[in-house]
Amino acid sequence: MAKGAVTQAAGFLAAGVSCGLKRSGKRDLALLHCPGGAAAAAMFTTNKIVSAAVEIARRHAKTAKIYGVVINSGNANACTGQKGLDDAVAMCRTAAKHIDAHSHEVLVASTGIIGHPLPIARVKAGIGAAAAALSASAAAGHDFARAIMTTDTRCKEAAATLRIAGKTVTIGGTVKGAGMIGPNMATTISVITTDAAISTPMLKKAMAAAIGESLNKLTVDGHQSTNDTAIALASGAAGNPTITRRDTRFRSFAKALKTVCEDLARQMALDAEGATRMFKVIVTGAATSAEAAKAARAVADYDLVKCAVHGGDPNWGRIICAVGSCGVRLDPKKITCKIGDAVVFRNGRPIKFDAAKVSDTIRQKYHTITVNLGAGKCSDFCYGCDLSRAYVTINADYHT
Amino acid sequence: MAKGAVTQAAGFLAAGVSCGLKRSGKRDLALLHCPGGAAAAAMFTTNKIVSAAVEIARRHAKTAKIYGVVINSGNANACTGQKGLDDAVAMCRTAAKHIDAHSHEVLVASTGIIGHPLPIARVKAGIGAAAAALSASAAAGHDFARAIMTTDTRCKEAAATLRIAGKTVTIGGTVKGAGMIGPNMATTISVITTDAAISTPMLKKAMAAAIGESLNKLTVDGHQSTNDTAIALASGAAGNPTITRRDTRFRSFAKALKTVCEDLARQMALDAEGATRMFKVIVTGAATSAEAAKAARAVADYDLVKCAVHGGDPNWGRIICAVGSCGVRLDPKKITCKIGDAVVFRNGRPIKFDAAKVSDTIRQKYHTITVNLGAGKCSDFCYGCDLSRAYVTINADYHT
Repeated sequence: MAKGAVTQAAGFLAAGVSCGLKRSGKRDLALLHCPGGAAAAAMFTTNKIVSAAVEIARRHAKTAKIYGVVINSGNANACTGQKGLDDAVAMCRTAAKHIDAHSHEVLVASTGIIGHPLPIARVKAGIGAAAAALSASAAAGHDFARAIMTTDTRCKEAAATLRIAGKTVTIGGTVKGAGMIGPNMATTISVITTDAAISTPMLKKAMAAAIGESLNKLTVDGHQSTNDTAIALASGAAGNPTITRRDTRFRSFAKALKTVCEDLARQMALDAEGATRMFKVIVTGAATSAEAAKAARAVADYDLVKCAVHGGDPNWGRIICAVGSCGVRLDPKKITCKIGDAVVFRNGRPIKFDAAKVSDTIRQKYHTITVNLGAGKCSDFCYGCDLSRAYVTINADYHT
Repeated sequence: MAKGAVTQAAGFLAAGVSCGLKRSGKRDLALLHCPGGAAAAAMFTTNKIVSAAVEIARRHAKTAKIYGVVINSGNANACTGQKGLDDAVAMCRTAAKHIDAHSHEVLVASTGIIGHPLPIARVKAGIGAAAAALSASAAAGHDFARAIMTTDTRCKEAAATLRIAGKTVTIGGTVKGAGMIGPNMATTISVITTDAAISTPMLKKAMAAAIGESLNKLTVDGHQSTNDTAIALASGAAGNPTITRRDTRFRSFAKALKTVCEDLARQMALDAEGATRMFKVIVTGAATSAEAAKAARAVADYDLVKCAVHGGDPNWGRIICAVGSCGVRLDPKKITCKIGDAVVFRNGRPIKFDAAKVSDTIRQKYHTITVNLGAGKCSDFCYGCDLSRAYVTINADYHT
């Protein structure tokens, strides 16, 4: 189990406090501190309109060592013009002052409502309070995780340990996100810490691979937010020989990091706005990997499929309709579809199956839809979740 | 008003009967007969997986004169293999026999559930009953319109008249469709009749333009069905000099046809599954027309925008998020957004607006969202509708 995930690895202190951005009074200011400095890998949204925090964090991520991360929830600081940029810089500067670092050695992220100026005085006060509360305890890690939540109903944390050259290495992380989640940076905000000693280039490689196969494969409503940010920090406190190339040690580390990210992605899917269950769409037999990814996403994003999953309905017609209309090559006479282990459509024709049993499969927390396009040898996958009345309630009744 | 739209133009007889495909016992078999033969223009889904009816109708649409159209609802005859093709041919053959035509002079369409073999004996009996009931009355036209409905809650008909060279020309049409509606053949099934005398090539041009600016601009859930079909038939019974080129007469006819199609598209949007209101997304300032269309569709298809419209929430952040993440070129410093007449975001920055007034605008049956991308001079538009709890109920609780 993840015990205060971001503080589980050695070399990190965290805090999460309330500074008044959320009307509920819940925690909304998170601070992470790595006193010894950390190698950092950061990935950002590919939305062309990005928050002020993303603009500033992109610049600071080029710094050799990162000493802190400051995150506010309850306000996205996006579409806020020059004041937004000034505020994002002020957040870094304030955090840097408290943890005795330079402003450009601090990363910043924001999440919440778009288009409202940040009440920066409150945020600065919150950073001060968080700095005073910094701790390596599990409780402090949980506070950090809670302070980055928005419409999330659950705090999402995961951790893993592995042995590298006789040393125990820990990886821990948290993620927030429940809506505005589409592939290619499906993360909204995630922070992963590790005490592994690993070079920045290798950490970037491991992080890109891990996110690419987990958080980036998740679609809730097919769109990326303006604020998506994923940060990995490596303190080196585990004392293993520094990983600097693609060797066995790197592969072990990368695999463990991927496990953590997959766990976080799964938790995020199950906590998606209104979601009651999730599913994985595997597309095989595609002409190219890109077409496999496109078809998988078309199925996972299709509201009619999402509604069928919600209703436990083995409606393969909607799956076939989605792949047929998404523009990828396929052979209508070879296309085959499975729900769980049950083949429901083979070589372009429906086949008899036990509908009650397949419905039971769909009603699990997690099931798999497999589509073979019959057009090639490439494959890819995507995670999706069901569409419920609660999703509409959350997103229609919520007011700006 | 449309009085039995498909029989309003001279030269057409119609009927709609029940043959037992719908469990409800409602009308599910529609027959149209043009005793004098008609010039025809037919457009079909671009889904790569098409129904048997679409395969057969595509072939028959090449015939010089069409004498009949036979349509069943309650069963899509899609993904049904060779039996499906045989059944679609049998539908044409049976209809042809009753109206004294050749099989290839009859067009066929099916709509309903995917993957179930057609009970062809019942369908054949229904065609016989429909043939016996053929009439040029308004009531027969309404019966035809009702018999092509599936989850539609309302019968959709429209008509227009115009004068061409001293003759009165009538155009009437009906459309069915409430879900699985995406641009580029957003029509599910539509049948338009006219007594205009017009050559087949010119009818095709007018139809392509009219559908392109109306039904093809509508997105309900972003996907095309396997069965989308639009058919226009021109009997020539109005006696006008035959339209054979792009002259004033052609332009008058094309304009009237477009009016009918726009009316049908509007009716379809407002009857979309669970929809309570519709909206038009206009994108200007795009680098290319294709990018304008893509951005407009991204906004109209985005569940978070659709939920905001349902809730009457002027949530421009979601609109900006949608255009930012859809991959089109834009200038974040120039992007501007209007809801109705109210500018809510100008040159990349939020501006103060009367939220209550804009909320009232959104709560109308129809409103406009305008986004200027600041990246060029091209524009396009798209129609969308809100996403409601009822959409989920209809599509989750409906079982295959």
